Amino acid sequence: MSADETLSSKTIDTIRTLAIDAVEKANSGHPGAPMALAPAAYTLWSRFLRYDPDRPDWPNRDRFVLSNGHASMLLYALLHLSGVKEIGKDGRPTGKPAVSLDDIKNFRQLDSKTPGHPEYRHTTGVETTTGPLGQGCGNSVGMAIAAKWKAARFNRGSDTLFDSDVYVFCSDGDMMEGVASEAASLAGHLKLSNLCWIYDNNSVTIEGHTPLAFSEDVAERFRGYGWNTLHVADAEDCEAIAHAIETFQTSDDAPTLILLDSVIGFGAPDAGTSKLHSDAMGEEAVRATKRAYGWPEDAQFLVPDGVADHFHRTMAERVKPLTERWDSMLADWRTANPDLASAYDAMESGALPDGWESDLPSFTDSDDPVATRNAGGEVLVALAQKIPTLVGGAADLAPSTKTKLDFPGAGALEADSPGGRTMHFGIREHAMGAIANGMAVSGLRPFTATFLVFSDYMRPPMRLAALMEVPTLFIFTHDSIGVGEDGPTHQPVEQIAGLRAIPNMHVFRPADAHESREAWKVAVQQSRTPSTLIFSRQKLPILDEARDHAGEGVAKGAYILADAEGGDPDLILMATGSEVSLCLDARVELAKRGVKTRVVSMPCWSLFEQQDAAYREKVLPRTVTTRLAVEAASPLGWDRYTGPDGDILAMHGFGASGPAPDVQEKFGFTVDHVCKLASALVRQAEPA
Amino acid sequence: MSADETLSSKTIDTIRTLAIDAVEKANSGHPGAPMALAPAAYTLWSRFLRYDPDRPDWPNRDRFVLSNGHASMLLYALLHLSGVKEIGKDGRPTGKPAVSLDDIKNFRQLDSKTPGHPEYRHTTGVETTTGPLGQGCGNSVGMAIAAKWKAARFNRGSDTLFDSDVYVFCSDGDMMEGVASEAASLAGHLKLSNLCWIYDNNSVTIEGHTPLAFSEDVAERFRGYGWNTLHVADAEDCEAIAHAIETFQTSDDAPTLILLDSVIGFGAPDAGTSKLHSDAMGEEAVRATKRAYGWPEDAQFLVPDGVADHFHRTMAERVKPLTERWDSMLADWRTANPDLASAYDAMESGALPDGWESDLPSFTDSDDPVATRNAGGEVLVALAQKIPTLVGGAADLAPSTKTKLDFPGAGALEADSPGGRTMHFGIREHAMGAIANGMAVSGLRPFTATFLVFSDYMRPPMRLAALMEVPTLFIFTHDSIGVGEDGPTHQPVEQIAGLRAIPNMHVFRPADAHESREAWKVAVQQSRTPSTLIFSRQKLPILDEARDHAGEGVAKGAYILADAEGGDPDLILMATGSEVSLCLDARVELAKRGVKTRVVSMPCWSLFEQQDAAYREKVLPRTVTTRLAVEAASPLGWDRYTGPDGDILAMHGFGASGPAPDVQEKFGFTVDHVCKLASALVRQAEPA
Repeated sequence: MSADETLSSKTIDTIRTLAIDAVEKANSGHPGAPMALAPAAYTLWSRFLRYDPDRPDWPNRDRFVLSNGHASMLLYALLHLSGVKEIGKDGRPTGKPAVSLDDIKNFRQLDSKTPGHPEYRHTTGVETTTGPLGQGCGNSVGMAIAAKWKAARFNRGSDTLFDSDVYVFCSDGDMMEGVASEAASLAGHLKLSNLCWIYDNNSVTIEGHTPLAFSEDVAERFRGYGWNTLHVADAEDCEAIAHAIETFQTSDDAPTLILLDSVIGFGAPDAGTSKLHSDAMGEEAVRATKRAYGWPEDAQFLVPDGVADHFHRTMAERVKPLTERWDSMLADWRTANPDLASAYDAMESGALPDGWESDLPSFTDSDDPVATRNAGGEVLVALAQKIPTLVGGAADLAPSTKTKLDFPGAGALEADSPGGRTMHFGIREHAMGAIANGMAVSGLRPFTATFLVFSDYMRPPMRLAALMEVPTLFIFTHDSIGVGEDGPTHQPVEQIAGLRAIPNMHVFRPADAHESREAWKVAVQQSRTPSTLIFSRQKLPILDEARDHAGEGVAKGAYILADAEGGDPDLILMATGSEVSLCLDARVELAKRGVKTRVVSMPCWSLFEQQDAAYREKVLPRTVTTRLAVEAASPLGWDRYTGPDGDILAMHGFGASGPAPDVQEKFGFTVDHVCKLASALVRQAEPA
Repeated sequence: MSADETLSSKTIDTIRTLAIDAVEKANSGHPGAPMALAPAAYTLWSRFLRYDPDRPDWPNRDRFVLSNGHASMLLYALLHLSGVKEIGKDGRPTGKPAVSLDDIKNFRQLDSKTPGHPEYRHTTGVETTTGPLGQGCGNSVGMAIAAKWKAARFNRGSDTLFDSDVYVFCSDGDMMEGVASEAASLAGHLKLSNLCWIYDNNSVTIEGHTPLAFSEDVAERFRGYGWNTLHVADAEDCEAIAHAIETFQTSDDAPTLILLDSVIGFGAPDAGTSKLHSDAMGEEAVRATKRAYGWPEDAQFLVPDGVADHFHRTMAERVKPLTERWDSMLADWRTANPDLASAYDAMESGALPDGWESDLPSFTDSDDPVATRNAGGEVLVALAQKIPTLVGGAADLAPSTKTKLDFPGAGALEADSPGGRTMHFGIREHAMGAIANGMAVSGLRPFTATFLVFSDYMRPPMRLAALMEVPTLFIFTHDSIGVGEDGPTHQPVEQIAGLRAIPNMHVFRPADAHESREAWKVAVQQSRTPSTLIFSRQKLPILDEARDHAGEGVAKGAYILADAEGGDPDLILMATGSEVSLCLDARVELAKRGVKTRVVSMPCWSLFEQQDAAYREKVLPRTVTTRLAVEAASPLGWDRYTGPDGDILAMHGFGASGPAPDVQEKFGFTVDHVCKLASALVRQAEPA
């Protein structure tokens, strides 16, 4: 063995023993996959990954995604041993390592850099949060789309600013999850030749051997998706791994799947069994394993001399010439392409371009009623003309969700037009969300669209957007029983409450065209919070009151849309979306009966909760306890605003198929019924 | 053309024109798929489907699933023309048709038998609710599993009580949805030779032609799953369709996919385009289409003489001999197998067998603390020994969720042991839910299991279980930040609120082993409501108080676990799950400080809401407004019980990776912190 070969072998075993020791110390974690994948990871990082450990934020770096996030120690060991430097919260290098040896000793401890699963924004070098299986695969498709999009948008002549590849390690679980299947199908369709999934084919899952539940021919399935597939029969064979990666790099027409036959917990006495999947191995097995590696069995967290230097050097020496060339290319390109350069800078900084809100549609009183899906769609198209990174589409529902970017030059994002703006996700809601998140961590401002009821299909990536603090824009139309004839399978009831429960997620349900515009404005200005924008299928009146107050009000989450006339209100009606205009009509009717009514529009609860106590008290004064909330959805959560003396007109079961007005009447969403409930509350509140 | 051929052709065109006319009258719906699929549907129903229109509840009938539920008019036309008889809500024939011509004229109208998407329990002959794409495919796998399970359990010698097939019509959308991919992979693994999917390969979706987003080789993908694949190049060619179905019937080692190339809206001027996907065609196009069929263009809802008789006759004459033979076989079998017969009767009636609760584990004070996942698992295994139809498993987490049925004779449900009791769903949560629902509509009592955070992956089938009113049992463990080291990706926060928002879903989060047993008892007694059972990973004390009161209390959803001593309470602490014992400890501490505290355990909100006002007032008296709710989850919904003077100790963001006690302390779930918040509330409430 040459000196370099010896060092390579030592580096691989260092990755393994760090994983073993960290899991052992934490008494928790997953040692088996890092032990199996260390050779492939080392080969990829040292020989192929265009990633400068000293500059982990280089824009054109290759991305590495550990979709089997439970193998987090693999990634932490790689980051530590290759000497990746930390980037601080302010975006500047801190001079510290991304992951120190102490961090590894604190694996899975509170507030360490090394949580149980890799967390985006928490540890430098973690390109996306993984753990929920299949999500990393979905993200990687978004990253590959983003890389090709940036290449199409920014590369000029021989100035190749963007040509990065995306490498993914994934597991049996990823192969089984539907979200990864959906993402793989779309990746094949888009011919993402910059995408390489390396599948850890270890035939072991938590319940035992995969033949218990998984006997498909994965390669054949992926060929069906239009992928190139390669097979490496021995995960210890670094040359075979390298050869497979080289083959991937020569491909220009399809993504690549490398099936890597591996032995989970390689080197351990119980290698190849589900015992090695989770949990610490125990002292005896650890010693035996280290002996098998030719490792000092008493050593813990040992990094032999030369290993870290070697690993860092293999990467830095290979990549630094690339980044230096890239820097000088960027400088020349800036001079030659000043307009592109400012778009590039806006993308990299995440800032909205100047004038982004200068040409938004304004709606006038004389306009006919308009569905908020249409109003929202108009605003989206106007925003997209100003914000070049706003890229996205629907899960085969663009005509219904009004989310097609149809201005000149927008175009479709397809295999032969990777710089297009409108994406066709297909009927793949789950992958749509995961792909959008991958685009978001790549610096784009992705949006997705489908019917609100199908938000259920994509909750996992919505949660991850909130957890990762990326501002993905989730559009949902067909917001309630107002859907009408399609019936209860298509009428959301519990979805709004379920989405409001997600931390760090703004959920907007605008009442009319004005509120739709204002909701969009708040949403696109978020940099750390995803937004859910919920629009109606049915037409809604354009409200004078919203014209006057929505500009300030929507940003505060809730506001007085129309106040009681002639003194303090007897009653507060509060609502969102299509039920706001119902409340306004009821207010007029109640006034005739002598009931002084305030109408509060509450398009975004989470923003209202962020206001100070004085504002909240102003909108919902504690003295006015006669309150009625109206929302054609689950009542869950409304008690916070109605209090014990109030009432809630909501959906207590599923909807029904019929013309929307009939359905709304059946469930009591009429002016008459609102007035009846309101009058009963007012009577109840009168002194006996 | 022979007379029969003429009638066949007429029947096919009647199906088409009924669909056209119904959509036209409703001015809403999807005419194109019924027009394309009428020949295949007619061929399947008239020549192959073992389904007696006069007896649509025959236990061994073949199942027909319209996974592309938006094509509902196809199914309604089939039910009408073949003369399927209605079964009433009491399970007895009403003498009326399942779908009358008037029902078809009332397509998509409120309270009609013909809602926009087919609804289980609403229209006789609808085997499962479809519309959300992919779900019907998932259900069908559960139906096929159930058919083979019943065959293994009940068939004896030549007495073949069960040998039914499951036929599915599905669309591009179904092929793209991950849930169908997951289900197909498991169906191939289980070699479900009684399952046939007929894929309407029309190359058109809502956004346009499928090449926009879908270019995979579906057949190759399915071969990868281990399916047989067949291709019918012309959906008008009934003989080719028949031949493909015959080929399916001869297969005994794998499920079958028939790719049926079709023209959406066959016969219409815009046939083969997305215009035919949704919406009414308009009068002119309707006339042109009818002319193309050789149909009287002025006629509406025309059923030519002889068509209905012909269709009914082809099915009845073929199937009645089968059902008659089956009835006499059943009678003989009953005599020969009295034990099996009583199990069969219990399954068919849905009743629990006598003595089902006689041997449930009782937990004693002297037992060490036990995680509710372990306690719940013990109860599950005990129940399963008494209830033979309790069949299910986990998404590769049986060891963690404690859901393996490990008693003698239980066995795994695999291709070569289709009568087993423990299923290995693989890492396919979404399909797991959909498959379980398919088993539920087949008369089994399925259960599923995974971590609570991954309930997000399976919300669509959970919603459908609630909507279909089937009592699927959804087990979730690892219920909170108590998960510890796995960190925020694995720590549920918003899931409990999101599940509570689903109508007709009981969500149980038991506080200890006693409550776990009682929750299970309530759950298995449901016949029309699915249950979500949420258990802890971490150990929890076994509560004396629960031993005494949980029996009555859990069934009421919330109850007084420990009351204030020496008079009315100054404070009510309320909690669920692991936070209940925290509140009990805080109560003792608060008593030392002179605060008289009631602790209310609230394991199931929906059951509490069903109690009368007197009971609810008894548990949470309006006079005691000093209240603190404690739940390591989103606060959404708790205000209903705490009121404006109360407080909520909950999670306002995502969790963190670390040992569980550290994480719980970080977020304030300690006795000290509960006491501090409680004391502040009590002070606040004191008269100034």
